[in-house]
Amino acid sequence: MTRKATIIGGGVIGGGWAARFLLSGWDVAVFDPDPEAPRKIGEVLNNARAALPALADVPMPDEGQLSFCATIQEAVQGAEYIQESVSERIELKHRVYAEIQKHAPKVLLGSSTSGYKPSQLQEDAPNPGVIFVAHPFNPVYLLPLVEVVPSAKSDPQNIETAKEILRDIGMYPLHVRKEIDAHIADRFLEAVWREALWLVKDGIATTEEIDEAIRMGFGLRWGQMGLFDTYRVAGGEAGMKHFMAQFGPCLEWPWTKLMDVPEFNDELVDLIAGQSDAQSGHMTIREMERIRDQNLIGFLRVLKERNWGAGKVLLDHDARRRAAVPDPSADSAAPLVMAHIQVLPGWIDYNGHMTEARYLTASTDTIDAFLGHIGAGMEYVAAGHSYYTAETHILHLGEAKLGDRLTGSVQVLGADDKRLHVFITIARNGEPIATLEQMLLHVDVNAGRTCPAHTDVLARLMPIADAHAALPRPAGAGRHIGQRKS
Amino acid sequence: MTRKATIIGGGVIGGGWAARFLLSGWDVAVFDPDPEAPRKIGEVLNNARAALPALADVPMPDEGQLSFCATIQEAVQGAEYIQESVSERIELKHRVYAEIQKHAPKVLLGSSTSGYKPSQLQEDAPNPGVIFVAHPFNPVYLLPLVEVVPSAKSDPQNIETAKEILRDIGMYPLHVRKEIDAHIADRFLEAVWREALWLVKDGIATTEEIDEAIRMGFGLRWGQMGLFDTYRVAGGEAGMKHFMAQFGPCLEWPWTKLMDVPEFNDELVDLIAGQSDAQSGHMTIREMERIRDQNLIGFLRVLKERNWGAGKVLLDHDARRRAAVPDPSADSAAPLVMAHIQVLPGWIDYNGHMTEARYLTASTDTIDAFLGHIGAGMEYVAAGHSYYTAETHILHLGEAKLGDRLTGSVQVLGADDKRLHVFITIARNGEPIATLEQMLLHVDVNAGRTCPAHTDVLARLMPIADAHAALPRPAGAGRHIGQRKS
Repeated sequence: MTRKATIIGGGVIGGGWAARFLLSGWDVAVFDPDPEAPRKIGEVLNNARAALPALADVPMPDEGQLSFCATIQEAVQGAEYIQESVSERIELKHRVYAEIQKHAPKVLLGSSTSGYKPSQLQEDAPNPGVIFVAHPFNPVYLLPLVEVVPSAKSDPQNIETAKEILRDIGMYPLHVRKEIDAHIADRFLEAVWREALWLVKDGIATTEEIDEAIRMGFGLRWGQMGLFDTYRVAGGEAGMKHFMAQFGPCLEWPWTKLMDVPEFNDELVDLIAGQSDAQSGHMTIREMERIRDQNLIGFLRVLKERNWGAGKVLLDHDARRRAAVPDPSADSAAPLVMAHIQVLPGWIDYNGHMTEARYLTASTDTIDAFLGHIGAGMEYVAAGHSYYTAETHILHLGEAKLGDRLTGSVQVLGADDKRLHVFITIARNGEPIATLEQMLLHVDVNAGRTCPAHTDVLARLMPIADAHAALPRPAGAGRHIGQRKS
Repeated sequence: MTRKATIIGGGVIGGGWAARFLLSGWDVAVFDPDPEAPRKIGEVLNNARAALPALADVPMPDEGQLSFCATIQEAVQGAEYIQESVSERIELKHRVYAEIQKHAPKVLLGSSTSGYKPSQLQEDAPNPGVIFVAHPFNPVYLLPLVEVVPSAKSDPQNIETAKEILRDIGMYPLHVRKEIDAHIADRFLEAVWREALWLVKDGIATTEEIDEAIRMGFGLRWGQMGLFDTYRVAGGEAGMKHFMAQFGPCLEWPWTKLMDVPEFNDELVDLIAGQSDAQSGHMTIREMERIRDQNLIGFLRVLKERNWGAGKVLLDHDARRRAAVPDPSADSAAPLVMAHIQVLPGWIDYNGHMTEARYLTASTDTIDAFLGHIGAGMEYVAAGHSYYTAETHILHLGEAKLGDRLTGSVQVLGADDKRLHVFITIARNGEPIATLEQMLLHVDVNAGRTCPAHTDVLARLMPIADAHAALPRPAGAGRHIGQRKS
């Protein structure tokens, strides 16, 4: 049965939560008295649909059902998880919790609050044990971090269940063990924000100069290692103690105005808003959102390729989902579907189609999966043997577009102990859009020359080759360039 | 004549500067009394050689000459630029400057200081007008940011010349208009560092939890947009003023301990060093450097693909260098060398060779350059016409490895008003390692069908086709898969 989440409070944050749950296959009920809520959430959802699937390398679940409810009572009906993202006013949150717990007292209730401690949220609640902080970061549908903060009154088992649910929607729950105002990350953001206000107010730097000072330097570092690991590396082999001996004394220096809070008056607001307009007023917010999302997708895919940081979260998430994709049966007399591929934003060329090189990537994914299937995968290569591609013929029959879901299937045209002749079909909804005929040679990697494949590999390959010998030869096989279609 | 830079003070920062200059074709003379300096700089240089070229899409200049000098007098001889990266002690810097300016009083003298103001550096100097702050960020050979800070005594023309030199080595000089302790970026780092020390000291979070709170969330954002642009987007269409109205009141909240400085004693140092060991002690610093560099290369290439932020700096840098690469002569009876390609770390597969898809990328780069050459480039596509690839035949003749410099050349095998039949050779040192035969069709993009090319395009294409008709037909042309080599 489809699982259901309730989102209390729409807007950018609530919309981001709704998108994560929906795109993870959950049904979502939204309560927000703002008549604009469906439009606002719809916009966030559209952004998310163009972004989150670009991070997956296994097929996404079917999207859940989105509904808008007139009352909290209706919205929490049958929900397994409730996320509250209303304005940062404690009395409002308390009122909302009282109403929620009148109808669903036992359901997990996370709050997106960036400032309040869970013990403050729990005050006067009918069932404080299910209430906790689940503080996400914008854009919620792309950034994995969610700070999960319990209080002493929170039931530890509830917190573990909540973390499992957050992982299910692809997030990285950071368990904050001691509650504190603003949790962890926002304390840093607040510190930087204050200092930035001073720099602008005193005319040291404009908003644009400050942004460049961040994104051209330490901002790039912090997307992949945090503060301490970055300094650990900077300290070199002498280690963290050495680094701190150097850096420690700086704390005594007058390098910060943070002892003090700038007066937050209209003049400062106008100064900053004016500089921000001069910096980025030539772009709409929608354009900037798209740029931001595409950049973040790029960063996250880089980290995923390296199984590092946020990329490890994505790989683990894929692994959980992949378990649900069935393995092809080995001896079937049909081409083997070995890969499921979704066309990503970064794969699109200036014609608006998938770039040519990506057809070969799709084919490589297909063949790699096939080689893994016959026991000639990564471990086989590490042990010194591999199949190298000697020759490839690509025939383009259609054009893949953004978001298309493709399959890659393999038909073995011929095989002996050294040669593997395959025909790969990249298809969309069963219709081929490209075919790739390849000749692979089995090599001794160290010697750099062909040699017979291991008998275990041949024992798995040959029954497939025999079964496929009964299949009709594909029309595209054996062509040379420019040959008329038969 | 080769330009020369002098590096005073080795170590991680001085070594990074040396690497940037050397890999940009400058000769570099280093002065550092530490007998370990050559080893330390050599290690940084090895890292840089494996990293910086991965950001370039035009050939790098030949590496300059590195020399180590016994005296400052010898090191500054003939230098056009001097960069000082000695310890952060003002009296040491003053002593070094006095010695430098005894022998090279007029040469630009940048300091890597993270804390001192240029006016402090200039005190008692024989020629203060050439002295300024040029504060880089580790790893200096990858991160583009350098804060250039003059004082009132600095000659503005000198500062402009210095910025030009820093651009020449691929950096982004951020001109800090008013001098201030710690410039801009390090004020933020200092603020975050202080807050982090409190969180660790009070047992709220470990170094690892803090690092995750950064790199899983806002750190990813800050690699591509800074503080203000990020909040501008978060504010939505209501704009920056609206965002600030929400955020402003938080400044009154007790969300920071930054009013106060934690006591920096041995206990705190041990606590942090111990947590850092638990977090990352399973990796050597060298391993972490490689991981960091590969991640940064990935991020920077993502931004380069999008011509955004630090990626725009890289594209502009390429454009300056590309101007030096000669255009092929159009009517020569020889295949046209249209692309210069360097094999990047991210292009290597688990066999240690360039991945198959990258041969097609190299070929696409070659053909795109050729299409631009005959007037069928991006603008032609934007106007509604394009050449689509119908078919490709790839023949692998060798294996490209990390760092290899390849050329992509085009031989036109045949052309009419709708068809373009080409043979592309990817070569290393003139030896083909792959050939790609392609049939391209000229299409009306909107109608989605073939049509004759524009007469201007044909007027440039046909003379090349005629000239190439005299060339011998390549051995690999017209093959089908598995055909025996003739």
